[in-house]
Amino acid sequence: MRMYDLIMKKRNGGMLTEEEINYMVMGFTNGEIPDYQMSAMMMAIYFQGMNEQETLDLTMSMANSGDTLDLSGIQGVKCDKHSTGGVGDKVSLILGPMAAAAGIPVAKMSGRGLGHTGGTIDKLESITGFQTSMEQEDFIKQVNEIGIALVGQTAHLAPADKKIYALRDVTATVDNMSLIAGSIMSKKLAAGAESIVLDVKCGNGAFMKSLEDAKALAECMVKIGNGAGRKTIAVISDMNEPLGYAVGNALEVAEAVEVLQGRGEPRLTELCITLGAYMLYGTGLCKAPEEGHRKMEEVLKNHFAYEKFLSFVAAQGGDTEEIKDTKKLIHADYVVEINAPEDGYISSIVAEEVGIAALMLGAGRETKESLLDYSAGFRLLKKTGDSVVKGECIALLYANAEEKIAPAKQRFLDAISFSQEPVEKQPLIKQVIQE
Amino acid sequence: MRMYDLIMKKRNGGMLTEEEINYMVMGFTNGEIPDYQMSAMMMAIYFQGMNEQETLDLTMSMANSGDTLDLSGIQGVKCDKHSTGGVGDKVSLILGPMAAAAGIPVAKMSGRGLGHTGGTIDKLESITGFQTSMEQEDFIKQVNEIGIALVGQTAHLAPADKKIYALRDVTATVDNMSLIAGSIMSKKLAAGAESIVLDVKCGNGAFMKSLEDAKALAECMVKIGNGAGRKTIAVISDMNEPLGYAVGNALEVAEAVEVLQGRGEPRLTELCITLGAYMLYGTGLCKAPEEGHRKMEEVLKNHFAYEKFLSFVAAQGGDTEEIKDTKKLIHADYVVEINAPEDGYISSIVAEEVGIAALMLGAGRETKESLLDYSAGFRLLKKTGDSVVKGECIALLYANAEEKIAPAKQRFLDAISFSQEPVEKQPLIKQVIQE
Repeated sequence: MRMYDLIMKKRNGGMLTEEEINYMVMGFTNGEIPDYQMSAMMMAIYFQGMNEQETLDLTMSMANSGDTLDLSGIQGVKCDKHSTGGVGDKVSLILGPMAAAAGIPVAKMSGRGLGHTGGTIDKLESITGFQTSMEQEDFIKQVNEIGIALVGQTAHLAPADKKIYALRDVTATVDNMSLIAGSIMSKKLAAGAESIVLDVKCGNGAFMKSLEDAKALAECMVKIGNGAGRKTIAVISDMNEPLGYAVGNALEVAEAVEVLQGRGEPRLTELCITLGAYMLYGTGLCKAPEEGHRKMEEVLKNHFAYEKFLSFVAAQGGDTEEIKDTKKLIHADYVVEINAPEDGYISSIVAEEVGIAALMLGAGRETKESLLDYSAGFRLLKKTGDSVVKGECIALLYANAEEKIAPAKQRFLDAISFSQEPVEKQPLIKQVIQE
Repeated sequence: MRMYDLIMKKRNGGMLTEEEINYMVMGFTNGEIPDYQMSAMMMAIYFQGMNEQETLDLTMSMANSGDTLDLSGIQGVKCDKHSTGGVGDKVSLILGPMAAAAGIPVAKMSGRGLGHTGGTIDKLESITGFQTSMEQEDFIKQVNEIGIALVGQTAHLAPADKKIYALRDVTATVDNMSLIAGSIMSKKLAAGAESIVLDVKCGNGAFMKSLEDAKALAECMVKIGNGAGRKTIAVISDMNEPLGYAVGNALEVAEAVEVLQGRGEPRLTELCITLGAYMLYGTGLCKAPEEGHRKMEEVLKNHFAYEKFLSFVAAQGGDTEEIKDTKKLIHADYVVEINAPEDGYISSIVAEEVGIAALMLGAGRETKESLLDYSAGFRLLKKTGDSVVKGECIALLYANAEEKIAPAKQRFLDAISFSQEPVEKQPLIKQVIQE
């Protein structure tokens, strides 16, 4: 088999066989196929696409290119949740304990973020003492004991995806549904859970700006997941404004606690309950999503989920005093009020811009080497549709470097539009995709 | 400027500016732009194409990427002839002296062949003593003195083309008209002649199999040449059977002498006259191709072209005794008759297969390192349309290794088809393309 012939075949609109895809993925990963051939192939795929079978084969091949997590030592049907990412997305922090409290074993592998704020791992590490590296044996033991554990992603999980993505990123070949879906799903498949719930974000703060694209991505991922024998459901949710109130690592931990205590921002709470409901439905613990919905409302109301979060933080070395009283979490030197420049209704809060403003404050990483400022970020006091009067505080800015305040504040204000007419909010849950 | 943005632009169907093309070509040539980005770009160009202006800009950029020949020291309007390559194509050996005899200064830079037989340089080197490397000063002096000189192509002529072609060759991105035309024309432009006549081959023995493709390539090259200020004319000629009788280096030199002495195979002679006529027309030495045609017939008839060839060979150190009596040229140890297996008419001689048979005998190079066997090859005694009787000798095979004879002979015989009905020949000159 020669990579040249495979490029030619795809270029001419042919379909690659499973054997050919394995040859290509393995050859590229071990360095036998040079990057210039792989980038030509990726561009050919960009133009000619991949069909369902090719997409599944590619994903499986990448999933099997390195370590795969063996979760068979954990009792029960494991369910993994994945978000395609958005601004203020702290759902994993909340949903993990909720799912565990409802009886789903949560064995989660998470990555660090390269974006507006940190990833789930980074957010948790803003809690003093929290550890995310542990042996697989201890990881499985913890899930069996308290129902939930979270570990940092190893470098050797789907290394083919990592290498291919790095190449796509510099050759303008990211934008292809099969490649995007395959990249996400290869890591989910390698991470071992039998059931997967996907939170596909849609809007200006998400990778998929339109509902059409979000739907296409969701459908593609659901097909891959089910094709690989994992029960997969995708929920498409709005990302036209930041999710919840907080954007920033420790600020988001504090907000997660609010939701777990049953006093969270309504849309964020709704999203967690909906995703949890589909986790219960996907694992078969509930017969219908509606039943799952009720069960998830219950674990918030009776504080079982909150208690689970405390056990989880304690098990991984974190200081639970900071959870019980979130004012004890790391906090910023400067807290600056941002006031409404006019009377009216907030008509939009461009999520991506708020994310960039948070990045400017140090809440996210610009490069892999950047150090995070855990306490920096924003807390919104008003959201889309809320009425405001001129001079009223609409958000708080948290910073540790004086010179960063003014530009980030301006960027934040520029992200907000006002209207004289009342504004109707977009529905949060746009669609649910399942087989 | 970032290569990433240029790939994205072309991928999305945009047009690259002259500045962007120069950035890309120079950056890739000097190693600043990595090959994986260039191969992604080439694949994007394969799918999105390049318009006329982009094709011209790319060609100019590649032409200017290294040395360019300064022929201003040569009096008169220089004309360069280029063939897209075929089996038994010894036209340059004949046309050079013809053009020089008709008053066109011929300052030719030629390459070695990687294919069925050697290139023009290789063919000439089968003459004892013939030298093809000389200083530029001596090269120009020779053209001014005797009207013709031929030198080997330097490695630094259009190095960008060389590097880009090598990448296209391994990434399935050769088949694009703009890239093919640009590759050929960049070297022609760098080689300095004011006027260019292109012999675009068409048929099973050529890169362009169909007239449609040959025409598209011819039109693209003519547009580039004229766009670069060089008067350019393309003649599309048949390559469904080998050109002339001989296939093999010294064998082709001998055949060239036959044509120059006015006793050549009619179609080969006709092609040389036609191309010469357009050289005279293109340089303005004749007002109409018909006038050029008469002049070219004349230089064959009065042996001026033959005499010019002798001076040319002598000037470059070759043994003219081998020209005056071509039996003195290097000759093979084995000469084997190939006989007609049946009565009838030859209905086709698949040029490419004859080329491969010659390569098997050592007439061409399989890799850059292969050594040529100058005396190996074939001499056809019959061509398409000729009637034969069973057992009649239709060709001679020349070899120096006994074990190579049987397989090459078989391959040759397999290339020939017979018919019981008389066969009409395809016209040799299919079309002439000029602005």
